[in-house]
Amino acid sequence: MNQNDIYGQIKKKRSFLCVGLDVDLEKVPKHILLEDDPIFSFCKSIIDSTSEYAIAYKPNIAFFETYGSKGWKSLEKVSKYLSENYPNIFTIADAKRADIGNTASRYAKAFFENLSFDSVTVSPYMGRDSVEPFLNFKNKFAVILALTSNKGADDFQLFSNDKISLFEKVIQSSRKWKNAERIIYVVGATKSKYLKKVRNIAPDSFLLIPGVGAQGGSLKDVTSIAMNDRCGLIVNSSRQILYSSNGLDFDVSAREEARKLQKIMEQELLNKGII
Amino acid sequence: MNQNDIYGQIKKKRSFLCVGLDVDLEKVPKHILLEDDPIFSFCKSIIDSTSEYAIAYKPNIAFFETYGSKGWKSLEKVSKYLSENYPNIFTIADAKRADIGNTASRYAKAFFENLSFDSVTVSPYMGRDSVEPFLNFKNKFAVILALTSNKGADDFQLFSNDKISLFEKVIQSSRKWKNAERIIYVVGATKSKYLKKVRNIAPDSFLLIPGVGAQGGSLKDVTSIAMNDRCGLIVNSSRQILYSSNGLDFDVSAREEARKLQKIMEQELLNKGII
Repeated sequence: MNQNDIYGQIKKKRSFLCVGLDVDLEKVPKHILLEDDPIFSFCKSIIDSTSEYAIAYKPNIAFFETYGSKGWKSLEKVSKYLSENYPNIFTIADAKRADIGNTASRYAKAFFENLSFDSVTVSPYMGRDSVEPFLNFKNKFAVILALTSNKGADDFQLFSNDKISLFEKVIQSSRKWKNAERIIYVVGATKSKYLKKVRNIAPDSFLLIPGVGAQGGSLKDVTSIAMNDRCGLIVNSSRQILYSSNGLDFDVSAREEARKLQKIMEQELLNKGII
Repeated sequence: MNQNDIYGQIKKKRSFLCVGLDVDLEKVPKHILLEDDPIFSFCKSIIDSTSEYAIAYKPNIAFFETYGSKGWKSLEKVSKYLSENYPNIFTIADAKRADIGNTASRYAKAFFENLSFDSVTVSPYMGRDSVEPFLNFKNKFAVILALTSNKGADDFQLFSNDKISLFEKVIQSSRKWKNAERIIYVVGATKSKYLKKVRNIAPDSFLLIPGVGAQGGSLKDVTSIAMNDRCGLIVNSSRQILYSSNGLDFDVSAREEARKLQKIMEQELLNKGII
């Protein structure tokens, strides 16, 4: 998948919604736990019920990995289900990987070849040669953590000298790396005062924005600051959609929550003249 | 396992050697590929043949994960084999994980509970609340990336203001976190000029030092700068031991390489009066 494919989905669905698949078995409806593979079953239901409004899905790998090889089997099924049934929907493995070159290549293969994700989130701490192996794959993306939505983001991402903060340095530097057009940046919705800075440094990049909803960020604030003239945003919602009901109607309820977010997004796209 | 247990192993084995299990199926002896689970078989042979000289083993998770759920099954077998047969040897899951709090807890459970590792490597980019979930486990450790051994380490880890560099800030800050006594720091052997700074900021911490051997760092240089009066070092070697022979004698050869490193370490421990 390339940038134009993502733009195409945004226009077609009048949405820039990513649904985060943070599957917590303590929160899913009880009847799901009776299934053979409750993680896969829950993901499948959520995907089928929200696919009309979502342009991306983002499985949170920790929630699979916590169950070891069994969890990884579920992840393989989710990845396969998405690529076979929704090949036009962008997929993000939220894995926050990175390591020295030859090791990073193994992680890239794990998510791009063994699984069939379109992108994977990566931590930039180890620098250029820890991220570039993820950028070597045509039609795949590295989603680099720039400014995250958690409290601890302040500890190091805002570490600065008299010119610049670390998160700005990460964006500025990485834009010069090989295949930089395959980079997407993570910028938390809870940090809207820094969003403008990010958009100035990376006017054309896609930004993946978590933290809308449960974590306190406002979708309208984010959009007004960070949307560019082709949209350039992928806004994630997880808990608000996944756990809006824990009854038999959880999928209908999830669909309704996704639709509500899509309606706001549609209006923003209209306001900006993108659709 | 606690700090004293690790010190006990160092004194008993007169060694501070960690063997990194970076299992590359393109490099292992051909006859290993005929086994049902070549990754596990290779690890088992290396572990059995080097355990007299090693105080720690460090499976590199990417090399398992690249094979998906099958690779995770091999990892589960390696973890079980280590904890059942060598319960006194420290184990490090080299996974470089980290995420926001509730997600980080899942990763911690994956490695500390589902698997039985004593420690896991974590990236500090997302700050305090992304690392503290790993520090909540009694007798377990978080091995925080401070200054890594790769070229790209310079990109952000050496980003600095007029007082301090990012890697120093990471160490200084994290020493104030809850359960900070459960932190070990990664400092690359290729960065010996910065090792002194690290040892000044963290005089009592264990340092995990990769990059000796294949990556160019000198074991003697590292030791002379960074050993404290209880040793305080865990020095990793991977390729030099694992792939010293690709014939039928690979295990004997690996043992010999481990013994050579142990001999140097023994002399350093004697020089310092630790044994």
